[in-house]
Amino acid sequence: RINGDRLWADIVTTARFGGTDKGGVTRLTLTEEDRQVRDWFVGECRSLGCTIDVDGIGNIFATYPGEDPSMPPIAVGSHLDTQPQGGRFDGVLGVLAGVELIRTLKETGTVLRHGLTVVNWTNEEGSRFSPAMMGSGVFSGASCLEAIEALTDRDGTTVKTALETIGYRGEIPVGHVGFAAYVELHIEQGPLLEAAATEIGIVTGVQGVRWFDVSITGTEAHAGSTPMAQRDDALVAASEIVLAVRDIARRHSPGVGTTGFATVGPNSRNVVPGTVQLQIDMRHPSEAGLSQMQAALEQAVAAIDAEIGLKHIWSKQPVVFEPATVEAVRASAEALSYSATEVVSGAGHDAAHIAGICPTAMIFVPSKDGLSHNEAEYSSPEECARGTDVLLQTVLQIDLK
Amino acid sequence: RINGDRLWADIVTTARFGGTDKGGVTRLTLTEEDRQVRDWFVGECRSLGCTIDVDGIGNIFATYPGEDPSMPPIAVGSHLDTQPQGGRFDGVLGVLAGVELIRTLKETGTVLRHGLTVVNWTNEEGSRFSPAMMGSGVFSGASCLEAIEALTDRDGTTVKTALETIGYRGEIPVGHVGFAAYVELHIEQGPLLEAAATEIGIVTGVQGVRWFDVSITGTEAHAGSTPMAQRDDALVAASEIVLAVRDIARRHSPGVGTTGFATVGPNSRNVVPGTVQLQIDMRHPSEAGLSQMQAALEQAVAAIDAEIGLKHIWSKQPVVFEPATVEAVRASAEALSYSATEVVSGAGHDAAHIAGICPTAMIFVPSKDGLSHNEAEYSSPEECARGTDVLLQTVLQIDLK
Ligand SMILES: NC(=O)NCCC(=O)O
Ligand SMILES: NC(=O)NCCC(=O)O
Repeated sequence: RINGDRLWADIVTTARFGGTDKGGVTRLTLTEEDRQVRDWFVGECRSLGCTIDVDGIGNIFATYPGEDPSMPPIAVGSHLDTQPQGGRFDGVLGVLAGVELIRTLKETGTVLRHGLTVVNWTNEEGSRFSPAMMGSGVFSGASCLEAIEALTDRDGTTVKTALETIGYRGEIPVGHVGFAAYVELHIEQGPLLEAAATEIGIVTGVQGVRWFDVSITGTEAHAGSTPMAQRDDALVAASEIVLAVRDIARRHSPGVGTTGFATVGPNSRNVVPGTVQLQIDMRHPSEAGLSQMQAALEQAVAAIDAEIGLKHIWSKQPVVFEPATVEAVRASAEALSYSATEVVSGAGHDAAHIAGICPTAMIFVPSKDGLSHNEAEYSSPEECARGTDVLLQTVLQIDLK
Repeated sequence: RINGDRLWADIVTTARFGGTDKGGVTRLTLTEEDRQVRDWFVGECRSLGCTIDVDGIGNIFATYPGEDPSMPPIAVGSHLDTQPQGGRFDGVLGVLAGVELIRTLKETGTVLRHGLTVVNWTNEEGSRFSPAMMGSGVFSGASCLEAIEALTDRDGTTVKTALETIGYRGEIPVGHVGFAAYVELHIEQGPLLEAAATEIGIVTGVQGVRWFDVSITGTEAHAGSTPMAQRDDALVAASEIVLAVRDIARRHSPGVGTTGFATVGPNSRNVVPGTVQLQIDMRHPSEAGLSQMQAALEQAVAAIDAEIGLKHIWSKQPVVFEPATVEAVRASAEALSYSATEVVSGAGHDAAHIAGICPTAMIFVPSKDGLSHNEAEYSSPEECARGTDVLLQTVLQIDLK
């Protein structure tokens, strides 16, 4: 069994890096706050006897040695970056659980056959730089390093510069690490486990996602002297798109659709808006569902009387995890007598990329009120500890194979 | 007759203070760019022999002496501040026309009975600080200095601090200057004169305006894992309001309604928006029409299933200008053989405040494509010169009375 108090203390500690006054965390990827939490993580792992590797996209691999150095390590982990005004658990839990596993192994003198690698993936959130799951995406070959390094944030800073600025553009080539398996513990970020009063989610896969950028060009004009019939109002067109995204998602249940980002130019009360930028997120468990949603979006945009540029900038197909590894999670939850149920993840995860290159599974613990990407995000110490115990059992089972 | 080339040269000069690369101007009130254009204006007027007074809200009065110092001066003017990405003519024309009048009087050795005061009113645009027509509002007693000085911009800077920072928190008490009359030349900012192929607009009044601030509180949530039915999306609610404003204006023709400003929090693609701030502008030539529009807005907001704070933050009733002064404008245009037509201003103007304290009128010249609050705003050198000639004739007529 892992030590739940020690794990909780780490959650409290890491929440200080970028902590907000409402009890949340703003720790966007590759910022100074991200550097601080990375340094803390590296320091902890070093003190436990891990070797540290950082690759060219800033992914950190902390490896605790096993008996047989010829075997590839088993990997666990998640991400330390957060959303703006995000929560204390999203991502962090999976990394800290990995650290706690190593502490438990060390304390009990347990030596696995495989090494155990705790990974912190760079930019899982995709808020500062698109796309999400960036570090695991390059690692798994889903995207190429050169293109990703050149991406910019809203201030024009490139990924490469941001990595160099915080000192985490590492030496080792991206993707040159092999894993025996990858298991990621994460909070559910949705309402299903809580509603079912279930302790553990056995994640069987991850729904697909497509991201779109929208650029609307209207005509700036005086809000008092421009007759309604002569307006070309970019915010009116944008509002029609926001409602269309909502309506399309409703018609394609269980799909979801969100316009999470909007900026208006020149953004002055008495000026008819001339430009609006929107960022849209659409998801569905099936690729066919996603395609239908995209077609409906394109149709809705075409029907709006305005100059609109719609760009499909990223997608990730639905993923099904390897059944044997999912079974190991189920067996571990059962062995610990925790109630458990199968779920498909609504949120994207690094595990969805890693599933393409090695046997992969995920473990969910409940989120209070289903909330995430919210400062009020919460999972109790007991819930976090249960998930970490299941993670430990799953690693032990995989190690025996 | 005034010198149109000299006037045009001044328009080119002032457009450099805050000039944008698209040929527009961003010179928000009480910024460094505003200080620069104010300094230029004061320097020009001083060199022409004017006395300069600055009042406590930063209004600048440049007075060219007349024959009879016991008579209150005739005032002309407008404002030197602009919208973000605004144009080169909005406001500036009226101030530069005043300077050109003084140059013409001086050059021709003409001495009026009254002094001639050219006024630059502080913050006519209302973009950085609400409300619009701020300097003339305090001057005319429509709002009180202490309350206005304490207003803040989006960064929390107060009007008072901003005035002090640029060195234009003047010594003389606000409103302690009396005028024989006030005549403001301005670009139309709408399409009517151009459509009627008419050279001069004889402005008979200004439509009313009401401003509203809207604050929408939803629940931040994960864009992937939060089912559509469980969302409380602030941007969806905001979009419904934007469309309602448009629809209400359409139903209350000739009223207009605009949502010119919107910000979203936390503004991250994969987060269901938790907060949106909107700024709304509604106008109508009649007070009854305005009240109907406001009632419809309140009803529409109440019908939306979200936590919405709607605040009516400012209004200005419709204004009718003093007939004799309007007649002086008409007679001047006729004397110069310019085609002229009566219009009600769709835009707000400092003249609407000053009309409350002395005989007031306005002169419009056409705006290309009806565009204003737009970098492409344009009135030709001939159009600007015609308007300035009508202004001079009107002042000469008033001076004879
Ligand atoms: N798990 C998580 O919040 N991932 C962020 C990427 C996404 O799914 O939007
Ligand atoms: N004339 C002008 O653009 N005024 C700004 C205030 C307003 O009418 O919105």
